[in-house]
Amino acid sequence: MALNPPLNRKLRMGLVGGGPGSFIGPVHGIAAEFDHRCTLTAGVFSSDPERSKKAAPSYGVDESRTYGNYEAMLDAEARLPDDERVDFISIATPNHTHYEIAKAAVEAGFNVVCDKPITLDLAQAESLLKTIENSDVVFALTHNYTGYPMIRQAREMIQAGELGKINAIRCQYIQGWLAGTSEDDGGQLSAWRTDPAKSGAAGTFGDIATHAFQLGRYVTGELPESVSCHLKTFVPGRRLDDYGTAVIRYQDGAIGVLTASQVTHGRENDLELEVDGTLASLKWRQESPNELVVRRAGQPHQIYTRSPGTGTMTPLAEASSRLPAGHPEGFYDAFANLYNAVFDDITLRASGAAFERRDTVYPNVYDGVEGMLFIQQCVASSEQDAAWMPLNYAEARQ
Amino acid sequence: MALNPPLNRKLRMGLVGGGPGSFIGPVHGIAAEFDHRCTLTAGVFSSDPERSKKAAPSYGVDESRTYGNYEAMLDAEARLPDDERVDFISIATPNHTHYEIAKAAVEAGFNVVCDKPITLDLAQAESLLKTIENSDVVFALTHNYTGYPMIRQAREMIQAGELGKINAIRCQYIQGWLAGTSEDDGGQLSAWRTDPAKSGAAGTFGDIATHAFQLGRYVTGELPESVSCHLKTFVPGRRLDDYGTAVIRYQDGAIGVLTASQVTHGRENDLELEVDGTLASLKWRQESPNELVVRRAGQPHQIYTRSPGTGTMTPLAEASSRLPAGHPEGFYDAFANLYNAVFDDITLRASGAAFERRDTVYPNVYDGVEGMLFIQQCVASSEQDAAWMPLNYAEARQ
Amino acid sequence: MALNPPLNRKLRMGLVGGGPGSFIGPVHGIAAEFDHRCTLTAGVFSSDPERSKKAAPSYGVDESRTYGNYEAMLDAEARLPDDERVDFISIATPNHTHYEIAKAAVEAGFNVVCDKPITLDLAQAESLLKTIENSDVVFALTHNYTGYPMIRQAREMIQAGELGKINAIRCQYIQGWLAGTSEDDGGQLSAWRTDPAKSGAAGTFGDIATHAFQLGRYVTGELPESVSCHLKTFVPGRRLDDYGTAVIRYQDGAIGVLTASQVTHGRENDLELEVDGTLASLKWRQESPNELVVRRAGQPHQIYTRSPGTGTMTPLAEASSRLPAGHPEGFYDAFANLYNAVFDDITLRASGAAFERRDTVYPNVYDGVEGMLFIQQCVASSEQDAAWMPLNYAEARQ
Amino acid sequence: MALNPPLNRKLRMGLVGGGPGSFIGPVHGIAAEFDHRCTLTAGVFSSDPERSKKAAPSYGVDESRTYGNYEAMLDAEARLPDDERVDFISIATPNHTHYEIAKAAVEAGFNVVCDKPITLDLAQAESLLKTIENSDVVFALTHNYTGYPMIRQAREMIQAGELGKINAIRCQYIQGWLAGTSEDDGGQLSAWRTDPAKSGAAGTFGDIATHAFQLGRYVTGELPESVSCHLKTFVPGRRLDDYGTAVIRYQDGAIGVLTASQVTHGRENDLELEVDGTLASLKWRQESPNELVVRRAGQPHQIYTRSPGTGTMTPLAEASSRLPAGHPEGFYDAFANLYNAVFDDITLRASGAAFERRDTVYPNVYDGVEGMLFIQQCVASSEQDAAWMPLNYAEARQ
Repeated sequence: MALNPPLNRKLRMGLVGGGPGSFIGPVHGIAAEFDHRCTLTAGVFSSDPERSKKAAPSYGVDESRTYGNYEAMLDAEARLPDDERVDFISIATPNHTHYEIAKAAVEAGFNVVCDKPITLDLAQAESLLKTIENSDVVFALTHNYTGYPMIRQAREMIQAGELGKINAIRCQYIQGWLAGTSEDDGGQLSAWRTDPAKSGAAGTFGDIATHAFQLGRYVTGELPESVSCHLKTFVPGRRLDDYGTAVIRYQDGAIGVLTASQVTHGRENDLELEVDGTLASLKWRQESPNELVVRRAGQPHQIYTRSPGTGTMTPLAEASSRLPAGHPEGFYDAFANLYNAVFDDITLRASGAAFERRDTVYPNVYDGVEGMLFIQQCVASSEQDAAWMPLNYAEARQ
Repeated sequence: MALNPPLNRKLRMGLVGGGPGSFIGPVHGIAAEFDHRCTLTAGVFSSDPERSKKAAPSYGVDESRTYGNYEAMLDAEARLPDDERVDFISIATPNHTHYEIAKAAVEAGFNVVCDKPITLDLAQAESLLKTIENSDVVFALTHNYTGYPMIRQAREMIQAGELGKINAIRCQYIQGWLAGTSEDDGGQLSAWRTDPAKSGAAGTFGDIATHAFQLGRYVTGELPESVSCHLKTFVPGRRLDDYGTAVIRYQDGAIGVLTASQVTHGRENDLELEVDGTLASLKWRQESPNELVVRRAGQPHQIYTRSPGTGTMTPLAEASSRLPAGHPEGFYDAFANLYNAVFDDITLRASGAAFERRDTVYPNVYDGVEGMLFIQQCVASSEQDAAWMPLNYAEARQ
Repeated sequence: MALNPPLNRKLRMGLVGGGPGSFIGPVHGIAAEFDHRCTLTAGVFSSDPERSKKAAPSYGVDESRTYGNYEAMLDAEARLPDDERVDFISIATPNHTHYEIAKAAVEAGFNVVCDKPITLDLAQAESLLKTIENSDVVFALTHNYTGYPMIRQAREMIQAGELGKINAIRCQYIQGWLAGTSEDDGGQLSAWRTDPAKSGAAGTFGDIATHAFQLGRYVTGELPESVSCHLKTFVPGRRLDDYGTAVIRYQDGAIGVLTASQVTHGRENDLELEVDGTLASLKWRQESPNELVVRRAGQPHQIYTRSPGTGTMTPLAEASSRLPAGHPEGFYDAFANLYNAVFDDITLRASGAAFERRDTVYPNVYDGVEGMLFIQQCVASSEQDAAWMPLNYAEARQ
Repeated sequence: MALNPPLNRKLRMGLVGGGPGSFIGPVHGIAAEFDHRCTLTAGVFSSDPERSKKAAPSYGVDESRTYGNYEAMLDAEARLPDDERVDFISIATPNHTHYEIAKAAVEAGFNVVCDKPITLDLAQAESLLKTIENSDVVFALTHNYTGYPMIRQAREMIQAGELGKINAIRCQYIQGWLAGTSEDDGGQLSAWRTDPAKSGAAGTFGDIATHAFQLGRYVTGELPESVSCHLKTFVPGRRLDDYGTAVIRYQDGAIGVLTASQVTHGRENDLELEVDGTLASLKWRQESPNELVVRRAGQPHQIYTRSPGTGTMTPLAEASSRLPAGHPEGFYDAFANLYNAVFDDITLRASGAAFERRDTVYPNVYDGVEGMLFIQQCVASSEQDAAWMPLNYAEARQ
């Protein structure tokens, strides 16, 4: 039970983001430290140096390792000796800042865990990809829903052929927290998400449809070919879409439909995935993440649960479970699973070993580029009366 | 508690269809007799006169009123005295026969209850509409899911403005009984449903997507403007679609998405409707028909149930309930509700009173024409790379 | 498809009860006629002859066959020729009248379908048993929940040994319609149910705990040995229990617990049954009657559904299904299944054939006696500080 | 956002237990560090010093602070300077060791977080209580289910009178992991749990029924009066109960029923609580912990969810939430909530402030004594044919 062998020590994390009012910053902090494999050691918790310092204690970070901007952190940490310097940088800032921070961190030789979407637009993503390919860092993108054990189980069952050939992928990602509100209310969370300069070309489609798209990709491995998309803005005065539906054609004939909303009253975080194959179908809901329903003609419906030790789980799903069946694991646990997979690769790199760059357990820069392509083509399609836009991406994972 | 006042007698039903292996024929029989307002009196249970006679007793129909074809039934029944003749004809035969039977029955002066889809194509439907408009008969189309009390509750809540302006309508109708099978297996049910000559231009979209489309229309009253549709045939050798997704634009800016499948392993009859409004959202599933979930920002989720006498039901929904809360009503009960609304109008006509023809409680010929338009435009759109096809219908109900 | 062969005719039903405000009377009417095997031909719909006559048309019963009291009906019907006389009497009156009506009907040679509980007390039940044993009539007791296909599936799976030896039976029957109300409100339904002279020694335990007890018995065949019971009356002024818990010891070592309430706010008709065996466990809820959850260590949870034709149903369960999977069957459908099993035996008797009297598909007089014993011992136990009371009944079915 | 103000530092934890194969040890480690308020600093991870040392890295504990037994840890830590010494000891060892470790830790002046049940028997618990009362330490007992936000919401709603007077409490705690297995299989988890010398007088009732009992107590504040209990051992050769039902009479007339099983095939960790009041009823299930269903006559069912910021949560429940609605929080999150409440009191003590000892947010030694009384009386009752045993405890919290 050594820790991060052969390093045999906790990894050190530097966090950018996570100041007062942040949702995802604290999640990164908790998830990274979840299994004692990592310590949050340094941080830029706000672009305001005073606020950054005030936030540091709540993360357990010393004032000496608290910085006022990411440049200062990269610079100072790079000068630290090997056994003090942070091993990786986590980026949990608004979308429009991802690119420059990630690029700088990679160029400074740091491994990076970046929140999604990877950048503000496709061009930035492609540029970042080049930077990363020219480096030897580990780069992960926190499409965190891939961390749920039963999502990994779904993926492994499909990889093992249990669903047969994939015919259809249906995704819904329905939220309601932007229903009936305007961005004039001063809410920090909603403000930047609905500002094109900070969020990117899409609102809801950038924020959550990308999660849904990537989840379908991750679970099935189906390669998309083209997309037809319809974006809507229902709340008056909002500058970005808050609702949309995309139809996706996959290269081998499968069809997908994906609807995302942030204006459906009272709906919480209802990401739902259904996959139809020629041998079986499956269904998973993020709000009941410990269950995976699999159906086969002529059999009772089967509910697989996160239940390690019972013989019903696939290998990676079982390895991604901490608690016995019926002890609910949730959002943090899944996020921590993603971090653990990243830690494995950071450890490999730190110990001089090779590591996979494209077909990683965690979403990576290739997924990020593909996600930005998805957003760009969805917006373009929507602007052209839902015309079909190509969605091929030569470097996409399967 | 008189019966069908002022008629004060049971109505008399003549059924066409319902022979051995039929699914929907027996449903019509049970539903029509459910509340003792009607007796199944005459029938053509098969196109084979011998089989027709053999089936009659299971419906409680005398041999003297059992016919070998619909022409014979219409002819003989028309000659019977007023107090013996059937009051209406129910048509539960394969799609391609609806038109000629319905037309003949209407022309013979009989009220008609016709199974959906109304005809084989739009031209037939428009022709039948003219015939009906030139008559004074009651004509109903059994989009039976409108008979569920909680669907009626949803409709009444929306009509009362409880959801505000409608933004979005999401429908899924997912079945699996045609998964992995071929039409060579001799299954009577699946055989005609997948034969273009008997089923019409669409398979799954004609069979079940029309239910879903009509349900959204009935519940919300939103008028459609155009449709973009993608039909797929996943089972090799099948001649009609067995899967499809349609995106619908409504005239006042709402957007809809509708996916129908008959090849999703193990899924049963999962018709699901979600409606988003500016004030609230709702969700209903046919497989749990006694519940309606309504959500409003800032409130706990609310589950309205079929619970007459508790003050939580809308008027028509309450009047459509027979049993106390928690005593499940199901498919037959809802189908019988549809029949009861038809019986009200048949009674009005029989007693010389006026009755509504377009904005009826039950789906009618206008809904039928609109449904055929939907099928035709979905097929046309799908054949043209999902191009937008107009879906306006001047005589559509609101 | 002959009807009730070899009789080849509909059976004729005489109903006692079902006047204005009755819940269960109309249920009997609908359930008996459900499958066209029976016609409601005669009735005493109220003890007030005028009200009885007024109610008759809503059941489709002629004035000539409407009576002012049961004696008149039995007398008149007995005089009718064989081919007009009712085949059986259904009793849907308040509990305290069951005994005299049932006894008279049996003595007059009529088959009887009696609502539960069978009589007001055990002595009456035993007396009625003797009367029945001295007759050759068919006698059924409408513990209607046994009519649900998935209950029959549970029973057949247990009989086939799929659960192994039975260890435990847990039942809850939770309603809320008597919460916070008093019997002074003039509600007809609640009034007699809470009047000891009309309901019997127990309130909620007589009304619904008996259903739950009998359901566990029917599904498992486990023979009870003794009971310890705690009855409570929570609504001030009420004269009978409105809540209670019983612990049951079974003869072979299994243990049961049964809680019934009619004062749990907002709960509807939540009858839930769980059975633990050495090989598997199962769970069923009346409010989702088309599902049966079966769990076995080391397997995914399995949800069996009412899905005829898929190969997952046991024989009687499949034969008790009318509709394809996903088309909800409900309360009436199950009640009709019970009637159908009774019709089979009435037909056997009418055609001179032998029929089973104790191990019937439907609950019968032996179940009725056992149920009255259960009520009596529960009340006695509760009065003696939950002391153990014997619950053996030599003639109980297995 | 200072950390544990006015201490403004992380607390230091010493863990006893948690070696290879332990379930609850790692849970304590993760939960305590969850919110960065604490560092796991020292530990005795196994009674085998070598195994203890091997386990330490996986907790991030230095070898220098890893001990071979608890005496050594207490001794060494007590000698450390104030700013290095652990602030509290967490005990996650088999039941029979709790007493001596807790007693020694308290006597050494350490705050203690002890896993349940508090001791092996009531006498030990009462002895420990005296020790604690003679000290000034903070003592918490990890009945962790009280940490779920929606359990705290239930408690606060009841305290605010929203349910009215409490009539009934129904609890089930159903697991299946001991079904069909024997203790001969070498499973470490099951082995000590079914050994009377290590587990105490009860098996399943000590292990999980105490959780359920305490949860009902915590949520409702109802004081028990007496209990009648039936314990069973279904797996041959097992020496302790693996199933049981208890009926509980509360002092003000409420009635409770509690069934616990560890032998119900396929059931996971199904702890379910239902409470009936004169104004409303509620239901909560541990396997769907983010929901609380509240029902009131005449209203739709209401599902309260963990949804901070929406105005639907009670204060403590809201303060116990980290993530927005729909982002599932689970077992660890709730366990961490319990730790956080303990940290508040540890901080108060460390800074010289007064803190509550009986009516704490977290379960404490009084709850522990009451729990041991519950176990003792359940076993005694079961041995005497379910005779009523007093359950009054003068110092019980309300």
